[in-house]
Amino acid sequence: MQSNPVLIEVTRGPLVESVHKGAIAVVTPAGASVLSLGDVQRPVFPRSSIKAFQCLPLIESGAADHYGFGDAEIALACASHTGLERHAQLAAHMLAGLGLDEHALGCGAHMPLGSSAMKALIRSGREPSQLHNNCSGKHAGMIATALHLGEPIEGYFDARHPVQRRVHEVLSGLSGLPLGDDVMGLDGCSVPNWAMPLATLARLFARLVTGAGLPPERRRAVDRILKACWSEPELVAGPGRADTVVMRKLPGRIYMKPGAEGVYAGGFPEHGVGFALKIDDGTTRASAGAVMALVERIVPEARGLMARKVLKSWRGIEVGEIRTAPALERALERLDTALVG
Amino acid sequence: MQSNPVLIEVTRGPLVESVHKGAIAVVTPAGASVLSLGDVQRPVFPRSSIKAFQCLPLIESGAADHYGFGDAEIALACASHTGLERHAQLAAHMLAGLGLDEHALGCGAHMPLGSSAMKALIRSGREPSQLHNNCSGKHAGMIATALHLGEPIEGYFDARHPVQRRVHEVLSGLSGLPLGDDVMGLDGCSVPNWAMPLATLARLFARLVTGAGLPPERRRAVDRILKACWSEPELVAGPGRADTVVMRKLPGRIYMKPGAEGVYAGGFPEHGVGFALKIDDGTTRASAGAVMALVERIVPEARGLMARKVLKSWRGIEVGEIRTAPALERALERLDTALVG
Repeated sequence: MQSNPVLIEVTRGPLVESVHKGAIAVVTPAGASVLSLGDVQRPVFPRSSIKAFQCLPLIESGAADHYGFGDAEIALACASHTGLERHAQLAAHMLAGLGLDEHALGCGAHMPLGSSAMKALIRSGREPSQLHNNCSGKHAGMIATALHLGEPIEGYFDARHPVQRRVHEVLSGLSGLPLGDDVMGLDGCSVPNWAMPLATLARLFARLVTGAGLPPERRRAVDRILKACWSEPELVAGPGRADTVVMRKLPGRIYMKPGAEGVYAGGFPEHGVGFALKIDDGTTRASAGAVMALVERIVPEARGLMARKVLKSWRGIEVGEIRTAPALERALERLDTALVG
Repeated sequence: MQSNPVLIEVTRGPLVESVHKGAIAVVTPAGASVLSLGDVQRPVFPRSSIKAFQCLPLIESGAADHYGFGDAEIALACASHTGLERHAQLAAHMLAGLGLDEHALGCGAHMPLGSSAMKALIRSGREPSQLHNNCSGKHAGMIATALHLGEPIEGYFDARHPVQRRVHEVLSGLSGLPLGDDVMGLDGCSVPNWAMPLATLARLFARLVTGAGLPPERRRAVDRILKACWSEPELVAGPGRADTVVMRKLPGRIYMKPGAEGVYAGGFPEHGVGFALKIDDGTTRASAGAVMALVERIVPEARGLMARKVLKSWRGIEVGEIRTAPALERALERLDTALVG
């Protein structure tokens, strides 16, 4: 396995204490490389970054219209939400509209991702339910699609269920790859996830944000999904999260979505490019740092939206920082020329 | 910077999803290499792994005797505890014995490291205090030393304070390195920490667990510290933590202590070797996996004490695992020969 360059450095005092390697691809809808740093052909699991694609059958099947899902419900179906009561209640509302409740979900329960949501839940003395799972909206949308199409809703999360076969068709069709069992793993919420080269993942997002080469019906579905996420950025993640903060400030100009294990992907409609990045070690602090470096370089208005990551001791003394490494800095300088020049 | 080998792999379905690189050194008290994997000359901050060394002045100054500190107090002074009430109350008790309370501490407050301790604290409606800081025992011990020696206790955490100068003398003396400001950073609890080559850190632990080359007084102090940690392993970390579990089962045979940013160090008295490892990306899941692979290879009785790290989806399906990488497996096979043959 080729060694990827260091993208992010974590300093302490005068030294670099830890490093995060990874790869970044920025490509056009036709697949032309605008930036390629590290091994962008290595297959990566997109994880939650592809929730917008997993949501396409909900729109294209007519299920979203049938159940009266608006921007809020569609945004939640594309979300890795932080488990606020607002998120959990909206997922419950989506299920209630189907005549179901949280027991129909197969995503499993976990503590809210957001620390304030987690503290509030613990303080209330309640245990987390499946509604607090960051994927509860996605799962409610999958169940809605099955129900609308007259399919059994039991086992909707299984790779052989029509719900997941449709997701497979979307991803396989857009990537041009077979996406067989040899690249299939289960996500934390138990639905299948297919690994694909990082550059291919970036291309999927280039097509998502430009609509390039998509048939009219799919283009309308994509537009509806993007509009929903840009209209309800608090539902896509939660307060303080980079994707929420950036998309609230710059709707229509940046679409971005993180995935577990150090994945981040998205696109820039006005530049006509998509991107995908993966941190080799799967660390969120590194993917969060790398994506903001990329976003700020391509869209200067994003600068300052997320604070520089200073590391402080527990008594508040600055002890280090999380910063972009020289290889990433140099690549971003080349990117300027590629996009502008 | 030379690239270190992959020590730990994280799989999902049929693929390796994330990797953790790092270095491991196993050395004798004289500094002879028994195992060297990766760049063991690169300086690393030992972080909390060196708490036993930071505790030496507490014993050698006579402060521990003066204040009647027994195994429990000494173990807590060497701990990164999980913030259980038992831990917090013992730290408070140590301070009360000095006529002080938690406000004398300079470590800062953070949520208990242990999830059950954290939940219990949140449920009680209280905020974390400095007593819940995983370093509260170490800080109480540092304050005790200053008080016993008639030094001001204000600013005891500052690198220029006699308390920290003594720690510097211990580490500089044992390592034979100047440990100047060019390798000094502040730890999360605001006390200075000095980076040293990984192999040097391993040698410090070889001397700690064998007493080799130490003057009689220091040897007695070291013995007292190790006995305290082996007698009170729940105070050194907390239930379920690898160091607590292993040292409770195998006292006298293994001393081990983690540090932040993927550091683990310790030693094996009967084999007469010390070890230190550092994960490049600073991830705990990787240092925990690597240290158990090493410990289980050197002391077979440790096998099975910590469960194999299976990754499960939130509904309980096995989706992957955290496993030792081929380079680490091969190195551990060579280690067998080196230690036994």
